[in-house]
Amino acid sequence: MKVKPYCGVCLLNRGIKEVELATSDPDLQFKIVKELIKMFQEKFNENNISAHIGTYRDRIIKKLSGCKDPYAEQKRLSNKIAVKFLPFLQKKLNSLKDPYKRFRFAVLASIVGNSIEFHIEDQKIELDSLEQLLKQSFENAEKNLVKDDIQDLFNLLKSKKKVLYLTDNAGEIVFDYILINELYKLNKEVIVAVKEKPVLNDATIEDAKAAGLLELSVKTNSKVKIITTGTDHVGIILSETPKEFLEIFNKAELIIAKGMGYYESLSGEKLPTSIAYLFKIKCRSIAEELKKKINDYVVLLKRI
Amino acid sequence: MKVKPYCGVCLLNRGIKEVELATSDPDLQFKIVKELIKMFQEKFNENNISAHIGTYRDRIIKKLSGCKDPYAEQKRLSNKIAVKFLPFLQKKLNSLKDPYKRFRFAVLASIVGNSIEFHIEDQKIELDSLEQLLKQSFENAEKNLVKDDIQDLFNLLKSKKKVLYLTDNAGEIVFDYILINELYKLNKEVIVAVKEKPVLNDATIEDAKAAGLLELSVKTNSKVKIITTGTDHVGIILSETPKEFLEIFNKAELIIAKGMGYYESLSGEKLPTSIAYLFKIKCRSIAEELKKKINDYVVLLKRI
Repeated sequence: MKVKPYCGVCLLNRGIKEVELATSDPDLQFKIVKELIKMFQEKFNENNISAHIGTYRDRIIKKLSGCKDPYAEQKRLSNKIAVKFLPFLQKKLNSLKDPYKRFRFAVLASIVGNSIEFHIEDQKIELDSLEQLLKQSFENAEKNLVKDDIQDLFNLLKSKKKVLYLTDNAGEIVFDYILINELYKLNKEVIVAVKEKPVLNDATIEDAKAAGLLELSVKTNSKVKIITTGTDHVGIILSETPKEFLEIFNKAELIIAKGMGYYESLSGEKLPTSIAYLFKIKCRSIAEELKKKINDYVVLLKRI
Repeated sequence: MKVKPYCGVCLLNRGIKEVELATSDPDLQFKIVKELIKMFQEKFNENNISAHIGTYRDRIIKKLSGCKDPYAEQKRLSNKIAVKFLPFLQKKLNSLKDPYKRFRFAVLASIVGNSIEFHIEDQKIELDSLEQLLKQSFENAEKNLVKDDIQDLFNLLKSKKKVLYLTDNAGEIVFDYILINELYKLNKEVIVAVKEKPVLNDATIEDAKAAGLLELSVKTNSKVKIITTGTDHVGIILSETPKEFLEIFNKAELIIAKGMGYYESLSGEKLPTSIAYLFKIKCRSIAEELKKKINDYVVLLKRI
């Protein structure tokens, strides 16, 4: 998805919040913000992709501040809060017998988890109120699902074996656990990708561990496998992605991509296979692009 | 007041909202936003003043869009809503006999009026809810006044004759009417300055007329006089201000300056006389500078 004028505000706002997490030195903060504006002048144009500009932004902040992982503490706490929800999710899921109903619940759970994101211009959330937000999100999940390709996705899955699952945020990855486990029970081979290096509050191997996905991987032998994208991208920049990951990407029979970052960075690309984008709309630019509203839920299947 | 990193978000956000008011052509919107970012790269540094960058921003928007007054409609409606409050304000004022109590009420009324501003990052208001906001603001005015130099200002006024009153926004200027009329009744000569050309939703001669200030000026002969600053500045840039205005500025015995813009642009300058800044804190940067909170009211007297 190409950048829109309003992306400028959100990209800069998040940059400044991130600079504040990365360093408390006001002179250094100013120096970094000026570098961000300089990068904006070069990159902010109609042909660029918002998630790519986000990647360049995050690299500048990490390089100039010397802080490799500004969101480390937020990620740790997000996992902690999200893990508390697992028994609730599992109990709900276990009450459902019909395979489609179980799958539908697991998809919705994974999108509820996509609420866990900080410093987005149009979605103000704080760790203190996260638990409350997640509870409310569950109550309104069906109502908020304004683009509903879950049945199509379920049907398509029947003819597919190898699923690549691109995760988004720490905390959220606990909710993804439910869906990944369900895919495994549907007899799919699931390769779960997290980020190689920290970027925003995106999940890395540490978070896959906290969410129990590494255990699941061991338990299921080759049915569930954890890899990294090999990148530090907001979403993904395919031209910068290592070939080890691209081979897996190109061989997948279906891709499930969590979060706006993957939609921003992949929806304009020619892809090797069908992809399902699962996310909560958290910004004005994507709401306008999809003609939906902020806080709406999307399950958008692009068949190939 | 020097610019702070977070000012970047607010300046850009307001710019984008203003571009949307100025033109509905998406290509032109993008072109203007890119020009704004280019200007930011040149001007956004520790030595610049936020209100000055705001002025450069507004000139770019007006020049490239061809729209001379993007806030024209908001200003017209703000005046309309504010004028409805005049009888309420006058009734309240008329119930007070003690000159200090009357003056205090009039000062607070003028600051309540300072709520009328759009597209500020940390203060989301809409015309639809403005009436409600103003009512609530009156109820909480005394409680929100965290810097209270009203008594000092009242005492200082006793020895002063010529008062220069710098107005801020359309709509708000109706509330200023109350304080200006009270100054006149205290036997002061009041020169009221509005902006020469449109900038944001700042009051111009049109708004002085709508607020009844022109009538007051005629009625009081030379006691209340309306002039313009000769500028299109957010706040004021003294080095760019015409000498006709500077002569009046330099001869004033006391300056009353409404709104954050004047605080931003004058608080770092060497001034010819005492100045009282009257405003509601509407942004994070000024809240941090003054060690107060957003929505707090300030009456800050700087004596010379």
